[in-house]
Amino acid sequence: MTVPVRYELLHRCKDTAARRGRVHTPHGVIETPVFMPVGTQATVKTMAPWELSELGAKIILSNTYHLHLRPGEDIVKRGGGLHGFMNWSGAVLTDSGGFQVFSLSELRKITDEGVAFRSHIDGSPRFFSPESVMGIENALGADIIMQLDECPPYPASREYLRTSLDRTLAWAKRCKQAHARPDEQALFGIVQGGEHLDLRREAAEALVDLDLPGYAIGGLSVGEPKPLMYEVLAYTTPFLPADKPRYLMGVGSPDDLFEGVERGVDMFDCVLPTRIARNGTIFTSKGKLVLKNARYREDFSPIDEDCDCRVCKTFTRAYIRHLLKAEEVLGIRLTSYHNIHFLLDLMEKMRKSIEENRFLAFKREFYNSYGYTGQREDVLG
Amino acid sequence: MTVPVRYELLHRCKDTAARRGRVHTPHGVIETPVFMPVGTQATVKTMAPWELSELGAKIILSNTYHLHLRPGEDIVKRGGGLHGFMNWSGAVLTDSGGFQVFSLSELRKITDEGVAFRSHIDGSPRFFSPESVMGIENALGADIIMQLDECPPYPASREYLRTSLDRTLAWAKRCKQAHARPDEQALFGIVQGGEHLDLRREAAEALVDLDLPGYAIGGLSVGEPKPLMYEVLAYTTPFLPADKPRYLMGVGSPDDLFEGVERGVDMFDCVLPTRIARNGTIFTSKGKLVLKNARYREDFSPIDEDCDCRVCKTFTRAYIRHLLKAEEVLGIRLTSYHNIHFLLDLMEKMRKSIEENRFLAFKREFYNSYGYTGQREDVLG
Repeated sequence: MTVPVRYELLHRCKDTAARRGRVHTPHGVIETPVFMPVGTQATVKTMAPWELSELGAKIILSNTYHLHLRPGEDIVKRGGGLHGFMNWSGAVLTDSGGFQVFSLSELRKITDEGVAFRSHIDGSPRFFSPESVMGIENALGADIIMQLDECPPYPASREYLRTSLDRTLAWAKRCKQAHARPDEQALFGIVQGGEHLDLRREAAEALVDLDLPGYAIGGLSVGEPKPLMYEVLAYTTPFLPADKPRYLMGVGSPDDLFEGVERGVDMFDCVLPTRIARNGTIFTSKGKLVLKNARYREDFSPIDEDCDCRVCKTFTRAYIRHLLKAEEVLGIRLTSYHNIHFLLDLMEKMRKSIEENRFLAFKREFYNSYGYTGQREDVLG
Repeated sequence: MTVPVRYELLHRCKDTAARRGRVHTPHGVIETPVFMPVGTQATVKTMAPWELSELGAKIILSNTYHLHLRPGEDIVKRGGGLHGFMNWSGAVLTDSGGFQVFSLSELRKITDEGVAFRSHIDGSPRFFSPESVMGIENALGADIIMQLDECPPYPASREYLRTSLDRTLAWAKRCKQAHARPDEQALFGIVQGGEHLDLRREAAEALVDLDLPGYAIGGLSVGEPKPLMYEVLAYTTPFLPADKPRYLMGVGSPDDLFEGVERGVDMFDCVLPTRIARNGTIFTSKGKLVLKNARYREDFSPIDEDCDCRVCKTFTRAYIRHLLKAEEVLGIRLTSYHNIHFLLDLMEKMRKSIEENRFLAFKREFYNSYGYTGQREDVLG
């Protein structure tokens, strides 16, 4: 059997667990650590696929839950799978829909068999099982597909986390069995277990026993204090095999990216850069900036002096502020483009710093310039 | 004094008044007849300026009323005028704001001095006079600027049209006197007069006496029957000098473009292509198409088989329909791009047909293919 996704370790940073590698996929090679822009509904919000290419994105994420409800996986499959449907020649990862379904707290019911829920679009009753989700993800045709898992909220009782973890591990096995295209799509398992280190270890070991082509760490950045998240991460990654990619789900603030990379994570995704962009907030080398503020009304400098992206080379803060205030689509196009560029560029710099064994020094420089003090408000939108 | 805008006649079509020419401006040469995309708030909705260039747009229109209210002409001026502010290297035309202000029927009061109105954004009281509008348009810095005029609705009494026309003609004189940058920006007069041919003639002759660098025909496509519009147009254009550009304001459906060109018009503008695009309606060589319709759910053909624009070469109807249904910005980006391409391409074909003395034949071919039957519903969104 061909292995569709393979991890290649290039260099391990001195003094940290940060590692420089490559993930080989059927749709190209991904230099890691990598940030994956999120294209929930088969489009990274506001962006054309050629703009993602221009920014150097090699992999994007899309959402099984949303695509199942609209347009439906049958349409996507007939359109050539996600790659053909949205005309994206790079790699794609689909989540399992679990996170979205469990967020519908009023609308769903979980059993060991799966999860019953109602569509947020038309209220119609639906059911996700490991088997049905594999069917959907096989039809969507992403290079990397995620198992159905349960992502518990924070805080949750140990008892609940215990039961939930057993379910997630049982679902991993069922997903592996149901996966119909294992030589074309790589199934990743998801390590859950909340803040309990023993549960995390148990989850990692059980999933490793399944010999999957990659592993994700889920259930973090769901409300817990950052130091706790970093502790769980540092504890968990060593239980994951060094020859497989490691993916930290739903994480994408600059500080979390640094802290994740430092603890050995290879892949990240988050809606943060595009979501805050639509509110007019942009990342800059000197911290975040809320462009709608009146102080930028007559500011004819680029949005980030240190950035060489097309937006920063072309437009002024005053113009983009005007577009945002006037609710013109071009405004959120430009802020989205810049924010994705910012994170992709940041990852490229991290990769270089790992190669040069100066990752920690680079992190300190960045935090100093960014004005990061460890407060949650510093980095979230 | 340098003349900022000059018309060059290249060829007059046999059998019709259609003419092939060039308008020379401080920001490039415009091949005419031309359709000008509308960038109301210093952005053609959803489009980046490089996309307009890619589509071959050489001139766009922007709105004095909107830019005066937000961000204010002072900001635009400090940003380098409209060209610098929005980073558009082609030519720009600004309307006078008259049309928008008179559309605020509940909020404005007209006197010979000017028009008092309230901002639609914050309700603040404002006043437009010929002098203040020239001040604003001089600050915005477009290549072509329009006089303040009154655009009466249809139907209107002859008495009202008479009074209104006198005011518009008096305002034209005052605009010419107040215009502070006549060697950098070309002031165009606007012929009003409703459906009354004698008033149209009087207006045209009075404006020609002012020796302005160009003339517009206003007050058409405001609800009157199409045959009446074409009759007024056919009657009026011969009273406008052959060595100056002629601009038919607010007109941009394919049939109106053909009928206008046939009667000797050189320039057109309309929000139609971008407005219907945002509703998911696109122009095709075989007529308009409402992409949200269920029939396109599994239609994996391009939105227009006969179109060679980037959207038609890249995406399917099914994908764009999905984006529109999911309210994704990329959807209206793609339909806007295609619709602007469609009209710019149509004008290019008209120009070629004039050069080859087969304009009327081309019009017939297009109407046959488009399925145009002369009903208003055929062409409006």
